[in-house]
Amino acid sequence: MKTPNPFQILAVGSMAFDTIETPAGKADQVLGGSVNYFSIAASFYAPIQIVGVVGEDFPKSHLTWLSERKIDTSGMKIVPGKTFHWAGSYDKNLNEAKTLSTALNVFEHFDPVLSPAQQASPYVFLANIDPVLQQRVLDQIRQPRLVACDSMNFWIAGKPDELKKTLRRVDIISLNEGEAFLLSGERVLRRAAAAIRAMGPTVVIIKRGEYGATLFVGDSVFLAPAYPVDQVTDPTGAGDSFAGAFMGFLAEAGATREMARENPARWTELLRRAVLSGCVMASFTVEDFSIHRLMRLRADELVARQKLLMEMITP
Amino acid sequence: MKTPNPFQILAVGSMAFDTIETPAGKADQVLGGSVNYFSIAASFYAPIQIVGVVGEDFPKSHLTWLSERKIDTSGMKIVPGKTFHWAGSYDKNLNEAKTLSTALNVFEHFDPVLSPAQQASPYVFLANIDPVLQQRVLDQIRQPRLVACDSMNFWIAGKPDELKKTLRRVDIISLNEGEAFLLSGERVLRRAAAAIRAMGPTVVIIKRGEYGATLFVGDSVFLAPAYPVDQVTDPTGAGDSFAGAFMGFLAEAGATREMARENPARWTELLRRAVLSGCVMASFTVEDFSIHRLMRLRADELVARQKLLMEMITP
Repeated sequence: MKTPNPFQILAVGSMAFDTIETPAGKADQVLGGSVNYFSIAASFYAPIQIVGVVGEDFPKSHLTWLSERKIDTSGMKIVPGKTFHWAGSYDKNLNEAKTLSTALNVFEHFDPVLSPAQQASPYVFLANIDPVLQQRVLDQIRQPRLVACDSMNFWIAGKPDELKKTLRRVDIISLNEGEAFLLSGERVLRRAAAAIRAMGPTVVIIKRGEYGATLFVGDSVFLAPAYPVDQVTDPTGAGDSFAGAFMGFLAEAGATREMARENPARWTELLRRAVLSGCVMASFTVEDFSIHRLMRLRADELVARQKLLMEMITP
Repeated sequence: MKTPNPFQILAVGSMAFDTIETPAGKADQVLGGSVNYFSIAASFYAPIQIVGVVGEDFPKSHLTWLSERKIDTSGMKIVPGKTFHWAGSYDKNLNEAKTLSTALNVFEHFDPVLSPAQQASPYVFLANIDPVLQQRVLDQIRQPRLVACDSMNFWIAGKPDELKKTLRRVDIISLNEGEAFLLSGERVLRRAAAAIRAMGPTVVIIKRGEYGATLFVGDSVFLAPAYPVDQVTDPTGAGDSFAGAFMGFLAEAGATREMARENPARWTELLRRAVLSGCVMASFTVEDFSIHRLMRLRADELVARQKLLMEMITP
């Protein structure tokens, strides 16, 4: 067996078609899904392999496009049936999506079985899927060095006990503000983060849409602003691409749970910079529908905006 | 005539009784008013004299209390009649007040006539009053070195031409997000700031409630987060106390419009630190109704929270 790449990220989640309505317009049956956004974002930083399932209606050309970016798509199963479809809308408050319909389709019987190469991944991102599946993925990882997960209202309310089992095994969780309040039963950000950290993750990131993200680690709080874009066209995927850049940054830097114990100052610093990378990536995502902006994003644009954001937060 | 104190701030605006309802409770006929909040906040940094008018129902003990903080209240006229009264409420969105009633009372015939000592003030803050009165104050200032103003929807919609005359004569304007959009006709923060800067002020501060403030000066943007408090009890006065600490910080540092021309790097740096001081002050203000929290605020608490906020924004 090959030696695992020490920076390799494994991401498990959905590939989807999205139908989206925002104040800026409408997009019908466009490419979406958590691992789609996550992997494109992460691929700017580190090698990544994705695990998921699509139906026969999913364009193979897109999987090819991902492969050409060095995203290992061998874990993407193509099975008979239709691809997962999500329809949602945003009103003037672009920070919160309203789900109009969810058709799980082939995703309903998704059972992530990892190859030996996937089992060897040191970095793991569990996108917003059934917490039972999240655990099934973790069961197969041989030696995780850093595990992050996302979740959402649906699982927090529907499978709280299973989600809590997942949380006991992850280092980092990212949630939006409302989800953090729901999961913790608290209404104050700081207390919500403390309650969630007591469930397992040593790092909690609370995403606040156009107002940025707040990072809780150890005794410290980091207030990261969103990069101010001229127009938010479609917030879909902002959180997943945030997570992709965040996790990619940490993998590239070699930040692990061991570092958290052995060098907490360095760990905190890397987490803060990873959060800023996530904010910058999300700011590109929202500039267009679907993954369109990410697909044409150049590394030099990314670097330039990271520099600008640093200038905008330096006292 | 005495040589003017080079750091002296003159603030013109309202002393008021407020009746406020927020999700945290209700406060009836409590002390409020823009120069009240402004001057207490500014007094932590620089000497300040205030100009305004109250009715005979206003507690003289409060003017005495202000004087004991070295706030020069000799410009506060006490006239027959009732003090300005504002009633407002906030729903769950604590960033926006709903005005329930406004009784101008003695404020209706307010005509700010400055004493020679007041006319000599180098730093001037024009709180949210009729722009005609704001200009009348400026007409009397002999040698302004830095002028800041505030305004609100009522004047932006009601007296746009007069407000624009004021703006041509001020260095700095602070507005909340909705007001900036209304004044500029733009819907994007960056463009709104550019449009307002074209009206006169070289510095625009857009306040975003619990999400902080954005500073526009020269080509640079500074994203200042709000200090995360555990509970916002009453947002009233957050903007005025922000302005008080902001202006106080600049006066204490000797930042002037000359500095803006001669040393723009230093000017920008001081403005950024002044905005952070404003954010910290506002975070105390909102922790209790009225000016209660500010009245019991200690300098060491202020310094400690400033230090914490700096830690929370350092990458």
